[in-house]
Amino acid sequence: MEIPEPTKRRLVLLEHVLSSYSEKNITSQKIQELTGWNSALIRRDFLLLDIKRGASNGYKVDELRVALEKLLQLHANQKKCCIIGLGGMGQSLLYSTEIENSSFKLVAGFDSSVNRTEVLSSRFPLHPTTLLEKVIKEEDIHYAILTVENAEAQPIARRLAQCGIKGIVNYTPCVLTVPKTVKVENISLLTSLENLSAGCSDSL
Amino acid sequence: MEIPEPTKRRLVLLEHVLSSYSEKNITSQKIQELTGWNSALIRRDFLLLDIKRGASNGYKVDELRVALEKLLQLHANQKKCCIIGLGGMGQSLLYSTEIENSSFKLVAGFDSSVNRTEVLSSRFPLHPTTLLEKVIKEEDIHYAILTVENAEAQPIARRLAQCGIKGIVNYTPCVLTVPKTVKVENISLLTSLENLSAGCSDSL
Repeated sequence: MEIPEPTKRRLVLLEHVLSSYSEKNITSQKIQELTGWNSALIRRDFLLLDIKRGASNGYKVDELRVALEKLLQLHANQKKCCIIGLGGMGQSLLYSTEIENSSFKLVAGFDSSVNRTEVLSSRFPLHPTTLLEKVIKEEDIHYAILTVENAEAQPIARRLAQCGIKGIVNYTPCVLTVPKTVKVENISLLTSLENLSAGCSDSL
Repeated sequence: MEIPEPTKRRLVLLEHVLSSYSEKNITSQKIQELTGWNSALIRRDFLLLDIKRGASNGYKVDELRVALEKLLQLHANQKKCCIIGLGGMGQSLLYSTEIENSSFKLVAGFDSSVNRTEVLSSRFPLHPTTLLEKVIKEEDIHYAILTVENAEAQPIARRLAQCGIKGIVNYTPCVLTVPKTVKVENISLLTSLENLSAGCSDSL
């Protein structure tokens, strides 16, 4: 089943909300209060989930989480990731614990400077970028986190697509040209700030 | 005029594409090739722009950029930003040059550790988080970049909303509860990876 993109993005965030929600039940009104999404919209999103609406006390949080994880396959088997580009941003992700308890696992880092890959300490191996294709295939890595210099972004994206990467988290402001089989999340600081401010008359 | 959210996000990215595009003209087919967006969709997005379709050789890149910048108000007057949380991620943004040639300007950083704010070097002042409200009001800061620990994210978001912040770039995986007047871009690594993988049957 194809989940509409905006629904999918809301449900991914909802799983984060529920993971730190301490009550046993939650209503769509409460979700609206926490997320700002319209409660009618939330109830429509939930039609995709294999759950029954509770009585006036809303949905059971446990059931909702199980249904979300099943639909989104969030905790399906381990998904291997690599970081490409170990400058300031790449290094901060190297030492981040954010994805530690998720189904994603960082298994490799790459940088074009051998000095960096040799000097930096890491819980997983760091390689020169020349070994990108070899390591990605051997390790069966499906997701890449791109934190390279702008000029390197497109050439690296092309190589990633060619060796079977399914998704790229793009920290650069560059728009990547990749085949339809590769999904891209554009999350550069500049793009994000522009998305926040674009078309706001009060930004004048 | 209200620009539909998906159109706005495409046009923001298109401006990045055009800023590094060297030809004088560009067709919607060429944009489709570079971005993966359907050319009919692109032409529909362009109905919002104050441009005329060229002949068979497409749109004039210069005119297109001017129209995009006008519609999105990308280069309207300077938009002041601050970083809250100067751990690994916050520090990497502190030294980033990414937004240097944009209309956004970093003017303040905050951390709950006075040790950090005193030891780190920066081109702009760093303050203890206790001074958040005072500095944001005095400096007329409209955008905040949130890179704090998860437990701090919601309390800080509430304070930001109260002192008039218009938009938050949220690097934490927490879903922030803020009034409708505050926009949020959720770009945590975990959320981004989940958005890439969610609902992909081949992630099994």
